[in-house]
Amino acid sequence: MSANQTAVSIFALGGLNEIGKNMYAIEYGNDIVIIDCGNKFPDESLLGIDLIIADTTYLVENIEKVKALIVTHGHEDHIGGIPFFLKNINVPVYASRFTLGLIELKLKEHKILRESKLVEIDSNSDLNIGEMKINFFKVNHSIPDCFGVVFHTPEGNIVHTGDFKFDLTPANKEHSDFHKIARIGEEGVLLLLSESTNAERKGWTPSEQMVAEHLDVTFMKAEYKIVVSTFASNVSRIQQVVNAAQKTNRKLALLGRSMVNVVKVAMDRGYLTVPDGMLIDQKEINDLPPEKVTILCTGSQGESLAALARLSTGNFRGVDILPGDTVILAAGPIPGNEKNVTSIVDNLYELGANVIYGSGSTSGMHVSGHGYQEDLKLMLTLMKPKYFIPIHGEHRMLHHHRMLAESVGVEKGNTFILNNGDVVEIENTKAHQTTKIPAGNTYVDGGEVGTMEFVLRDRRQISEDGMLMIILTMSKADGKLLAEPETFSRGFMDKRFSEFRKDLIKLTKKNLNELQEGKKYSRNGVKKQLKRSIREFIYSRTKKEPMIVPILIEV
Amino acid sequence: MSANQTAVSIFALGGLNEIGKNMYAIEYGNDIVIIDCGNKFPDESLLGIDLIIADTTYLVENIEKVKALIVTHGHEDHIGGIPFFLKNINVPVYASRFTLGLIELKLKEHKILRESKLVEIDSNSDLNIGEMKINFFKVNHSIPDCFGVVFHTPEGNIVHTGDFKFDLTPANKEHSDFHKIARIGEEGVLLLLSESTNAERKGWTPSEQMVAEHLDVTFMKAEYKIVVSTFASNVSRIQQVVNAAQKTNRKLALLGRSMVNVVKVAMDRGYLTVPDGMLIDQKEINDLPPEKVTILCTGSQGESLAALARLSTGNFRGVDILPGDTVILAAGPIPGNEKNVTSIVDNLYELGANVIYGSGSTSGMHVSGHGYQEDLKLMLTLMKPKYFIPIHGEHRMLHHHRMLAESVGVEKGNTFILNNGDVVEIENTKAHQTTKIPAGNTYVDGGEVGTMEFVLRDRRQISEDGMLMIILTMSKADGKLLAEPETFSRGFMDKRFSEFRKDLIKLTKKNLNELQEGKKYSRNGVKKQLKRSIREFIYSRTKKEPMIVPILIEV
Repeated sequence: MSANQTAVSIFALGGLNEIGKNMYAIEYGNDIVIIDCGNKFPDESLLGIDLIIADTTYLVENIEKVKALIVTHGHEDHIGGIPFFLKNINVPVYASRFTLGLIELKLKEHKILRESKLVEIDSNSDLNIGEMKINFFKVNHSIPDCFGVVFHTPEGNIVHTGDFKFDLTPANKEHSDFHKIARIGEEGVLLLLSESTNAERKGWTPSEQMVAEHLDVTFMKAEYKIVVSTFASNVSRIQQVVNAAQKTNRKLALLGRSMVNVVKVAMDRGYLTVPDGMLIDQKEINDLPPEKVTILCTGSQGESLAALARLSTGNFRGVDILPGDTVILAAGPIPGNEKNVTSIVDNLYELGANVIYGSGSTSGMHVSGHGYQEDLKLMLTLMKPKYFIPIHGEHRMLHHHRMLAESVGVEKGNTFILNNGDVVEIENTKAHQTTKIPAGNTYVDGGEVGTMEFVLRDRRQISEDGMLMIILTMSKADGKLLAEPETFSRGFMDKRFSEFRKDLIKLTKKNLNELQEGKKYSRNGVKKQLKRSIREFIYSRTKKEPMIVPILIEV
Repeated sequence: MSANQTAVSIFALGGLNEIGKNMYAIEYGNDIVIIDCGNKFPDESLLGIDLIIADTTYLVENIEKVKALIVTHGHEDHIGGIPFFLKNINVPVYASRFTLGLIELKLKEHKILRESKLVEIDSNSDLNIGEMKINFFKVNHSIPDCFGVVFHTPEGNIVHTGDFKFDLTPANKEHSDFHKIARIGEEGVLLLLSESTNAERKGWTPSEQMVAEHLDVTFMKAEYKIVVSTFASNVSRIQQVVNAAQKTNRKLALLGRSMVNVVKVAMDRGYLTVPDGMLIDQKEINDLPPEKVTILCTGSQGESLAALARLSTGNFRGVDILPGDTVILAAGPIPGNEKNVTSIVDNLYELGANVIYGSGSTSGMHVSGHGYQEDLKLMLTLMKPKYFIPIHGEHRMLHHHRMLAESVGVEKGNTFILNNGDVVEIENTKAHQTTKIPAGNTYVDGGEVGTMEFVLRDRRQISEDGMLMIILTMSKADGKLLAEPETFSRGFMDKRFSEFRKDLIKLTKKNLNELQEGKKYSRNGVKKQLKRSIREFIYSRTKKEPMIVPILIEV
């Protein structure tokens, strides 16, 4: 990266100007350490794409330098890219016990668990990688066992917060380690990378305790079945549901593959306590009186194939939502998912359920796992960094976070608002932005991984306007037509196409004759000319621009 | 509708369980009166579709009964379907002066203004249609000249509120007509249809005056250019921007076709007062010092082709957003548009602008035009209806509105939560739900209007997984191949396709041989068999399911 071996470089391959696919790197001398390797879910404009992961070209080109992947916690936007990453760059993965549990599930699915090197660490661990000494501090978030990372480099200390909030009464009693964070700040922080998700939201994040209180009241009032939907990884929230079920003598059934899997990991590894005999199989739900049943399920983001969506449309075999049942959406909708979530709420109302929902904390059934403005200011105040890079957020969030940093003493000009791929170097405790490395999106589409440029371009055109083919069967010898041209369309004109099919064939023949008479006949010449004249013809008749595909068969 | 000529029927063809394409109807004896005829904008799942309008099959079948279209106000979800409707059913359109101005723009575009019958009414007008006497009352909303409608039928009075809120200090001084509404309630309301958009939101809608105060403060503080983006139809908001510009001695430029058009209608018809000499052409913007310029533009919903989006990416020729400029988003994002709006905010921050935005009323730059829960309860309290149909809202909103109605005295069981097409009949002052008429979505796709069932199905499959064609050129005589099968794909596999093209051709030939040897050869047989075996082959190799299209050419 730098010609100078004594500079430390910092860059992101994902996570800047986006929520998702977090991947940050610290490079010093001959060593690169990666922090997190997440995925991002495609929006509807990425037709057919399954996942988005970071472009790791730079790392593959410098593969001998890459020494470790440290994972701060087990959310998809921090671990979802790991299988793809390890297939290219098989370095040791350092993560906490719970996080490793989730990573193992993923590697098993991709059938690469055996050849992967997973190393369990906790907040007291120390790592030495080249000239970097690395240690950790506990933070509180919406999944167990999260930490921030401190890199002690010869240039100074660099801190990455992970995802965090300061909750004084978290459900699992594990709050962010104020004392250690204060000590790190006192030792001196050259550069802080801190997450920005809620940098637009004023005040403090409400405590998880609020959710417990609302759950308890709702469980006490509910007359029939209770269905609670949340993220499978939100073990604190699940523990609170278990507690509320216990207080009201209800059994608990789990619906949804990831709910079953993650609860198993959490119970096996001691992060979730479920009383003996509380868990029932989904087949037993209908054997119990409804007031004895709680169902915990996936689908809080409105995912169309998840349990909640299927329950809301009466398509979950063996389990029905009936009038008077209570359904709690104990998770806020992620931006972009609002419409999917509200359509499920609509369906649940149609079934007669009592639905408890609401964005943010309005329903009392959800609090964010990401610190609001005062949480972020507290982290900045405790860390007292000289330099600051706001990470994990869209551009406006990074911008707000910079203003927060300046309001608590970070000097103007010492905050870097970066894009993925921008490199900041620090040397002699002076930071400056230097070069840019490749850092676009890599798409996973079925079995293929790449930029999918042409595939997406074609899918977009066809999805808007459809496709129209003209097939010409011609003599190899003299280029004469051997049969009437055939036309064929998909996604274009339900009814009206037949109206002008004849004109289209006439037009095609006319073009062909002209070209042959002018002796300018060539396969490509024919295709080009046909495309242009058919496109004009179709647009004038229909105001649509389907993909025009002339196919020449020579016999 | 009813065999019984003395019953009044009420139904919606759009607007129930959705926000958009509002269209309601009152039928008595031989007369049908339509209220509103809106469109709805497609979400991203409706690939390539331009607009959604109501299915008017029932009206076309009963065309001799349809006597009038009454339009409550000029928003797209109330007028956007009119050109399509009038092309089928050319009845007189009754609307206020401002609403007619907007309808005229639309009919001009569709080139049917001349043959349309537009009738101007105001809140004092009386109409007689068959045995129905119809009059109107003013309501306040986010566009000028709105009203509710009262149908005096032999069965009793039916009231449709239109879209409304109760704002005591509206920008245009025209608040909802409390006195007339109170009188209507005293006369007795058999059935109320009232809008439900904000039935989930507690309290009262904030007053438009709040926006004026925030605009004034922001205009006074701004050092450079100010850009304000809002709905072109929100003339009150535009008036407030004009007022703020006047107080701070700024000129005003309009960007965006609909902004220019609607401001012209509003000024011509006396709904907007702009001081002489304030309006400048966009070409003059750069001639003035930036602190003398206000720009009013379209694109507050993040529409990718509108002025604000182009400004935010530096693609508006001749106008640049520069560091220190102030950009105000004076409109809330409509559900589903949040992501488009925030991505514009992100881009504006990258340009260095000071951006004032926020959902709902958090920025102080927007208040909703739709009444919150207390507004809705006040309407119900003043109208005192016997029966109630909540309209204009998604299912959960209708449900909340029913609870509000019951909380202010509507008897349980007297509220009808309907779907589009459900018919309620009232006879001898007894209401009950009876039959159901067709009421699906009709799509506008370029020049075609219809259900677009097959077109959409094909677009969806191709947009997810692409398309794969196998072209077989065969002898008409004996069905033997005359050339190697050709394969051809779009939107499927960027790089890996070539890896298995050979296997695919081998598979194709093998299938063909088997069919021909088994003497089961037929065109359809070949196509079916090829589709199945290629689909299986492709899925096993790629985990994708492209549309498989075998094409047989016989020469």
